[in-house]
Amino acid sequence: MEIEYLGMLAGTLTTIAFVPQVIQTWKTKSADGLSFGMLIIFNLGVFLWFCYGIMQNDAPLMITNGVVIFLALLLLYFKIRFTKNKPT
Amino acid sequence: MEIEYLGMLAGTLTTIAFVPQVIQTWKTKSADGLSFGMLIIFNLGVFLWFCYGIMQNDAPLMITNGVVIFLALLLLYFKIRFTKNKPT
Repeated sequence: MEIEYLGMLAGTLTTIAFVPQVIQTWKTKSADGLSFGMLIIFNLGVFLWFCYGIMQNDAPLMITNGVVIFLALLLLYFKIRFTKNKPT
Repeated sequence: MEIEYLGMLAGTLTTIAFVPQVIQTWKTKSADGLSFGMLIIFNLGVFLWFCYGIMQNDAPLMITNGVVIFLALLLLYFKIRFTKNKPT
């Protein structure tokens, strides 16, 4: 049970970690500092972690990766949108 | 056994995802686009995932989070170093 709490705490931290990143990228309207390759590979990886969590019936993996996918997809959307709207 | 392969693939992707980010941040010598709060919380969270992996005896969690810690600490180091060395 205590181990599950550790997993939940770990998952909570690696999940909320992306909130300040989303806020900063949104406020600065620039995603130049974020690597496009990182965002693509990371989104794909988090999706597979989510599937792994389902197959292992591991609640911390399922819940946290579900939220991380949402935040990571937001960052990918910002990256595409802010890069496209740049003055040439 | 197949589930373990999925975990390994997921872990490999979320691990190597940070390689292009490290390369870009190093090449541009700028970590302005990376949120300091994200780096701090993420490093702490990945460290706890690593501990969770050890306690669950979960190989994919242990190996991948071990490598992610290394890459995430590098990004934190870049953030501190490049911000410090900025012309004022």
